[in-house]
Amino acid sequence: MTEEHYGTPPSTLLDVARAAGVSASTVSRILNGTARVSEKKRLAVLSAIEKMNFVPNQMAQSLKSGHSMTIGIVVQDIASPFFDETLRGIDEGLKGTGYTSVIVSGHWDAAEEAERIQLLLARKVDGIILLSGRISDDTVIKFSQRRPIVSTGRDIHTKTALGFKIDNEYGARLAVNHLIDLGHRRIAFVSGPPNNNDACERLNGYTQALQQAGIAIDDKLITEGDFHEACGVLAVDQLLSNRQQFTAIFAANDLSAYGVRLGLYRKGIRVPEDISLIGFDDLPGSAYTAPPLTTIHQPIYDIGRVAIHALLALIHGKAIQADVPPLELVARETTRQLRG
Amino acid sequence: MTEEHYGTPPSTLLDVARAAGVSASTVSRILNGTARVSEKKRLAVLSAIEKMNFVPNQMAQSLKSGHSMTIGIVVQDIASPFFDETLRGIDEGLKGTGYTSVIVSGHWDAAEEAERIQLLLARKVDGIILLSGRISDDTVIKFSQRRPIVSTGRDIHTKTALGFKIDNEYGARLAVNHLIDLGHRRIAFVSGPPNNNDACERLNGYTQALQQAGIAIDDKLITEGDFHEACGVLAVDQLLSNRQQFTAIFAANDLSAYGVRLGLYRKGIRVPEDISLIGFDDLPGSAYTAPPLTTIHQPIYDIGRVAIHALLALIHGKAIQADVPPLELVARETTRQLRG
Repeated sequence: MTEEHYGTPPSTLLDVARAAGVSASTVSRILNGTARVSEKKRLAVLSAIEKMNFVPNQMAQSLKSGHSMTIGIVVQDIASPFFDETLRGIDEGLKGTGYTSVIVSGHWDAAEEAERIQLLLARKVDGIILLSGRISDDTVIKFSQRRPIVSTGRDIHTKTALGFKIDNEYGARLAVNHLIDLGHRRIAFVSGPPNNNDACERLNGYTQALQQAGIAIDDKLITEGDFHEACGVLAVDQLLSNRQQFTAIFAANDLSAYGVRLGLYRKGIRVPEDISLIGFDDLPGSAYTAPPLTTIHQPIYDIGRVAIHALLALIHGKAIQADVPPLELVARETTRQLRG
Repeated sequence: MTEEHYGTPPSTLLDVARAAGVSASTVSRILNGTARVSEKKRLAVLSAIEKMNFVPNQMAQSLKSGHSMTIGIVVQDIASPFFDETLRGIDEGLKGTGYTSVIVSGHWDAAEEAERIQLLLARKVDGIILLSGRISDDTVIKFSQRRPIVSTGRDIHTKTALGFKIDNEYGARLAVNHLIDLGHRRIAFVSGPPNNNDACERLNGYTQALQQAGIAIDDKLITEGDFHEACGVLAVDQLLSNRQQFTAIFAANDLSAYGVRLGLYRKGIRVPEDISLIGFDDLPGSAYTAPPLTTIHQPIYDIGRVAIHALLALIHGKAIQADVPPLELVARETTRQLRG
């Protein structure tokens, strides 16, 4: 008994093309995502595929051509607004390229991250974008010998792997210098988690800026946070219960700045009339808080665009450019001149 | 010349197991994601795999077993905080099951959505979760004949497809009744986009609640929004420039409520002292606005958990339960009793 005796024999690409009234190559391009055709035509083809029991053998195709037209993306927290904007940038950069992305999560765990990369490689993705992560640079470079990898938060540059990172210390200095320019000298800091690189670099930037301005570092003005809102509320409680004198707060990211804002609101302390507040990241929501948050703009959307462009260049053996725009101060309405 | 003459011959599963000091079945379980082993062991195996030029043929494996241990997830907007929480719930529900998820985006376009589903099916996912979307129920049911599908925002129930939706009208009535209970009668509404089902149902709920309370519907109190922050700012401008009298605003989702809050702040109107404000969704950030937002809690995290449990049940031919918790009022600090 041969296979043909089971059920309806599968239709061919040509059968589908005939039924939909398009050429076989159009069907093929619709299947691999490179078609630029009207929605009507696309729906006709998809409907013909459905009706005719045609299952495109994408895996056989990708093994044959060596290209799956798929990019693997490894994030660490699928629900973080921070990764969201970068994913949006990647999505935008993929438009019209014919490539599709699949997203998996490493959950800030090196072993899980390595497993997910193995999974993507086993599925023959054409390249991988790593958004942050815990695996070593060496491991990234090794994996990249199988498929090109672009990673954020790293300083690597080989023929198959490219990393780039933002200058957190510079950004933190921008934030503190803005407050100093407005006349503030008692500037509290809500840090990120101490085991996080970005957080450490921002703390460094905070102390550097104060030192450069000849302002003594006061450890009692530094509270440890974790990059989430609740730590901002707690930081305010802690600073006030210790009776610290301060006129401004620099929060190591926007989420903790939101918490600081709520903590101050609870105590009847106005922003910016009584206390100036500045964050770091410029999340999309920060333009819509009341009042809108002064912060350091991270080009998180552009990072996504730049990453995907660099990856496509690596895949096609072209020269790579990865010019991430610099960090910038966005002075909105939570900071103001200190009154004498 | 045979293939073996190219480069190093690939290592076997057993070679890897020997090098890592574990059993071959442990290597296998680590590769398919079902292993429950120490991080140390896992890293040893992954490092052996890397060193030894062993490429697990996941595709051949999945064709053979008929199970890829992968779930496909179709979202519409990868960067929406609303989808984020559901993805977090799915992620949580997948823990310890051995299944991995891959996420693709349909971008609110029926044809693109159908293409992405084809792509997932071609890659032999074991099942699919559709988060909202534009394709018809019939199309979902057809696709589900190839692999089980669970979809949010739909009312379907076959042997291979399950949909469930939240009761938007009920939620909107909860919101308006809360305001009415506090003595408000002039209640403005900032709607969602008119071509969106959820938005239409929430508008219905708003008018139903007013009618049930014997309050006349005033079209001038209804402004059209689009579920984003900016429309909330504009809605306030519009209501004020038309010199409408109102004491409370119901925004059709939390993002537009954030915009309303900012719009009122710009005009020096206090929340809740001058105007009460209520949203819909209960995004994670809504507990941390200043003041924290009163809203309708959607179980968006639970929807993710319920969806993945239902899908795994469908995949394993078990009875499905899809009990989504009901919508609830979360009375925080943006609403208060109307003063006489």
